[in-house]
Amino acid sequence: MGVMFRKMVVAGVGLIGGSMALAARKEGLVGEVHGYGRGKKNLRLAQRLGIIDDFFTDETRLPAGVDLLILATPVGSIVPLSRAFLPRLKPGSLVSDVGSVKGEMVRHVERILGKGEVYFVGAHPIAGGEQWGAKAAAPDLFQGHRCILTPTPETDPGACKKLVSFWRRLGARVEMMNPHVHDRVLALVSHLPHVLAFALVNSLGEARVDSLDLKGYCAGGFKDFTRIASSRPELWRDICLANRQAIAKGLGDYIKRLERLRGWIDDGKGGSLEKEFQRANDFRNALS
Amino acid sequence: MGVMFRKMVVAGVGLIGGSMALAARKEGLVGEVHGYGRGKKNLRLAQRLGIIDDFFTDETRLPAGVDLLILATPVGSIVPLSRAFLPRLKPGSLVSDVGSVKGEMVRHVERILGKGEVYFVGAHPIAGGEQWGAKAAAPDLFQGHRCILTPTPETDPGACKKLVSFWRRLGARVEMMNPHVHDRVLALVSHLPHVLAFALVNSLGEARVDSLDLKGYCAGGFKDFTRIASSRPELWRDICLANRQAIAKGLGDYIKRLERLRGWIDDGKGGSLEKEFQRANDFRNALS
Repeated sequence: MGVMFRKMVVAGVGLIGGSMALAARKEGLVGEVHGYGRGKKNLRLAQRLGIIDDFFTDETRLPAGVDLLILATPVGSIVPLSRAFLPRLKPGSLVSDVGSVKGEMVRHVERILGKGEVYFVGAHPIAGGEQWGAKAAAPDLFQGHRCILTPTPETDPGACKKLVSFWRRLGARVEMMNPHVHDRVLALVSHLPHVLAFALVNSLGEARVDSLDLKGYCAGGFKDFTRIASSRPELWRDICLANRQAIAKGLGDYIKRLERLRGWIDDGKGGSLEKEFQRANDFRNALS
Repeated sequence: MGVMFRKMVVAGVGLIGGSMALAARKEGLVGEVHGYGRGKKNLRLAQRLGIIDDFFTDETRLPAGVDLLILATPVGSIVPLSRAFLPRLKPGSLVSDVGSVKGEMVRHVERILGKGEVYFVGAHPIAGGEQWGAKAAAPDLFQGHRCILTPTPETDPGACKKLVSFWRRLGARVEMMNPHVHDRVLALVSHLPHVLAFALVNSLGEARVDSLDLKGYCAGGFKDFTRIASSRPELWRDICLANRQAIAKGLGDYIKRLERLRGWIDDGKGGSLEKEFQRANDFRNALS
């Protein structure tokens, strides 16, 4: 199999976008790779690291002949960037993203595309970490991880098939999901845990027990639990806003569960507590 | 420095108790080591692994001449075991524990001891993991970790000094804390996070989105976050009951914070969300 795309643009050359470029190059799937972003420092680093051949920071300077555009910026900028880039793309080119929220965004982008011959298919690789920026990119980031594609009835089947092949070549296990179902699933398995971790870290950061600084007492458990609280704030702000209904619902259900647990702790209901903990234990162990 | 104790008994030869025995032997701090527990299978394994020389399962069979007794069982059984063992110990012997909750327990044990010549000093090594049982024990478990001792005005200063030396030789950084302060600190840095992790895992375990099983979508972040939810249920039941006031208070404050966050998400208050996440970010990064 040869080159799938002659000219790829990665908007947002961070952990995900940069890793896609590296993996695509390693697999020989792309010809030139151009980076787009706001920060020249990161783009220069990406160029030095061989992630991209060149870069631009002005949307109107989109190179001619691009046939693959990956929007790998925070969720909130996908629609505005689509508005800027899509009219500049040549017929037949493929646009995709890597955003953690899909429903509204996909609808907006499809509206921007209209009936033209530029194709869009939403994608969300379930991979990543707390590191960010081009320096964190790695060609094996997606190896063995899921990548969820979110085609709709509007999606061109050929474009979708092409994106499936592309992601498989990047090492991912591809599956399809309705964009709204995707958002409800991700709200629970990813967005809610992040919000909880941010909140827990702040609870602790602000708490004072006899004017002791609690930092020194944070054991391994706490550190693991809150590792995700070092994720990028503006990214998570965008995610919370873009998926607010599903996250607010998940948060509401979780609060109810905590209220019940607090009642059991207050009333010394050891049996109920142990049952709750045992259930979590069983489920958690089934994950690994 | 030679042997500090001629005959050590470890009640509960699990991750912590077993590791103490291994570390103490390795450092040449103890002569014989006897294990006590309910499960013969674990005790036999501990013997085979060289953690203990011998074991007993009936409290009345406490060997003669014990000069160090470590209570390393779940928090709820420390007081009952003290009642059974303490009257059988010879004058001058030292009793300690490794429990995660101290306040009430220390008071009870001191009452059981009365004015006799058996000494008790509470201890809590901040080390561990999700593995349990003798098979998980390792002599370097405490290396570089904190061990909090919780002496009170009743505590014999000589006994306390001896326990400090012992824990230092096991590799721990020893510090002193009032038992009630200890409980409030641990409620926040350890007990609350565990309760939240158990609850989160169950939220997810019970949720259904379009009848999808969510297990397959749990990304790395979720797994780390909930790693502590594979901790031992009966252990955490005991901890929740023993430290219920501080945990219920921490949980209540945390619920209030979540309610506020939910409001911001509902109302689309991106600025407030980003500020909250940034604060968590800064604090979390200051930890590592």
